[in-house]
Amino acid sequence: MNLDRYRNLFLQYLSQKVEKGQPNNLYEPIEYILNLGGKRLRPVLVLMSCDIFGGKSAQSLDAAVAIEMFHNFTLIHDDIMDSAPIRRGKETVHKKWNSNTGILSGDALLILAYKMFDSYTDTYKPLLQLFNKTALEVCEGQQYDMDFETQNGIELNQYLKMISYKTAVLIATALKMGAIIAKADKRDTENIYNFGLNLGMAFQLQDDYLDVFADAAFGKQKAGDIIENKKTFLFIKCLELASDEDKMKLFNLYSENKNAQEKVDKVVALFNKYNTSEILKDEIENYTRKALKCVDKLSINTAGKEILKTFSENLMYRTI
Amino acid sequence: MNLDRYRNLFLQYLSQKVEKGQPNNLYEPIEYILNLGGKRLRPVLVLMSCDIFGGKSAQSLDAAVAIEMFHNFTLIHDDIMDSAPIRRGKETVHKKWNSNTGILSGDALLILAYKMFDSYTDTYKPLLQLFNKTALEVCEGQQYDMDFETQNGIELNQYLKMISYKTAVLIATALKMGAIIAKADKRDTENIYNFGLNLGMAFQLQDDYLDVFADAAFGKQKAGDIIENKKTFLFIKCLELASDEDKMKLFNLYSENKNAQEKVDKVVALFNKYNTSEILKDEIENYTRKALKCVDKLSINTAGKEILKTFSENLMYRTI
Repeated sequence: MNLDRYRNLFLQYLSQKVEKGQPNNLYEPIEYILNLGGKRLRPVLVLMSCDIFGGKSAQSLDAAVAIEMFHNFTLIHDDIMDSAPIRRGKETVHKKWNSNTGILSGDALLILAYKMFDSYTDTYKPLLQLFNKTALEVCEGQQYDMDFETQNGIELNQYLKMISYKTAVLIATALKMGAIIAKADKRDTENIYNFGLNLGMAFQLQDDYLDVFADAAFGKQKAGDIIENKKTFLFIKCLELASDEDKMKLFNLYSENKNAQEKVDKVVALFNKYNTSEILKDEIENYTRKALKCVDKLSINTAGKEILKTFSENLMYRTI
Repeated sequence: MNLDRYRNLFLQYLSQKVEKGQPNNLYEPIEYILNLGGKRLRPVLVLMSCDIFGGKSAQSLDAAVAIEMFHNFTLIHDDIMDSAPIRRGKETVHKKWNSNTGILSGDALLILAYKMFDSYTDTYKPLLQLFNKTALEVCEGQQYDMDFETQNGIELNQYLKMISYKTAVLIATALKMGAIIAKADKRDTENIYNFGLNLGMAFQLQDDYLDVFADAAFGKQKAGDIIENKKTFLFIKCLELASDEDKMKLFNLYSENKNAQEKVDKVVALFNKYNTSEILKDEIENYTRKALKCVDKLSINTAGKEILKTFSENLMYRTI
């Protein structure tokens, strides 16, 4: 895979684009979060997609930076809302500085993301309109996520919409932007978007799965989601299928503050009783299959399709 | 003046554009703040400017809504940062809901502002680029303002830059957008921008003046700025001119929490000793004169120029 090449290309470009502006208290937190690292998955997808559709990756660098800036804007503000102290092993912006600095430098970072599109001419408006639509969906997804914390009786389709908005649409948008910049036709830009959307869903649902079952082979569950009472696919599906008695048990387990390992064991036993991990695995496969179908529909050469398929596999096996 | 006509046109259009979206917790605060009222100065300026330059005001309605949305986004986030409980006589968003709701619905409102430009075609990119530049300056202005709270030795030019970014550039941008939509030529769009910039400066400096001297004729000062230790033009200029002894006095008055009226009287006595109110009045006149000079340079008919001049007078005499 060429992912490292794209990543290096991106990182080199990013380092030129992260300006040391004035006032310091506004721009230092922006520089800080953009240099925190991470897989740079979204910008890599912009470059890869542009390449696959016959464009020059260099042309898509500005859009890649915009997407990464937007993603980091959401991290700064989400971390404030979640009172999260740590991000990528380092202090979060609001922890290192303060909430006000986090709010304002997040705002500025969102605006800087918009500014990154300046270099585009005939694709300027389509890129901006896609960006607007996605940015709004990501905000809506975050609000649904916060609402769910205090809401009972969340339905599975609501949960799927939330993770779609919070995660999948930005993956899809990164890919579609690369295609737009490469002047791909409308059908292709839509199919690559749907590829990203389905892959993003599979990826996020696999997170739910791995959190509980990743180390199951070693007889031990980390299960941070269960400990934090997160209403993931497994929890919602289990509530949907469980007897009234088991429903009460699950609710009670999610409201008590008891011994973590004991709680995890009891919750997992309920998940297993209703086969929710198998249902989740089916769902993940379903989304992955849909994603791969979108690849088949693309009017690109076999090499390009292979790259997308290999990418999907690597992403799902978490080797990226 | 036709200001009421513009305002009514705007309010009617705004009521159609404020959607009741989902999730409620994201869109209700947006609807709430957009309906809080206010003079609607900025959107009125967009419509008026478009009209004066021979465009149809109706064409500039979307930009007017964008500017008003942006302004309200800054109000939501600024009120969080300032812990302000009241805005236009009603609870602020973060007080009525909570800080997280304020952060997120502010973010969504900024994105909605960007979306408002969708209806523009050949002016889309110039409008967006102007919007980006201004939005970033407004954030920088807010950061300077927060920095100044804990900073000593602020120079007058730093203060002027701060109020320019925090207030004047958005007034200027509102006017320039109307001109861009009306297809005014480059010289005119720059002159109307500079008119707005100078008028915005005069307007903001007059705020500094009126806070202390508005009711001086009645022998009584409200002087909220002095009570809150705000470093306004008067304070900075006074420090610049004062003897070392008076400097210390002023610093001490601004750090003590003593009887409000006694403090105000002593501070005003120092302001008067160094003639700062006269210096400030000169500065306001200076900016107003510069603004009117920009009007003279415009290639519009006399009626248009008269409208801008009357508007300036009404604004400065606070009859708008």
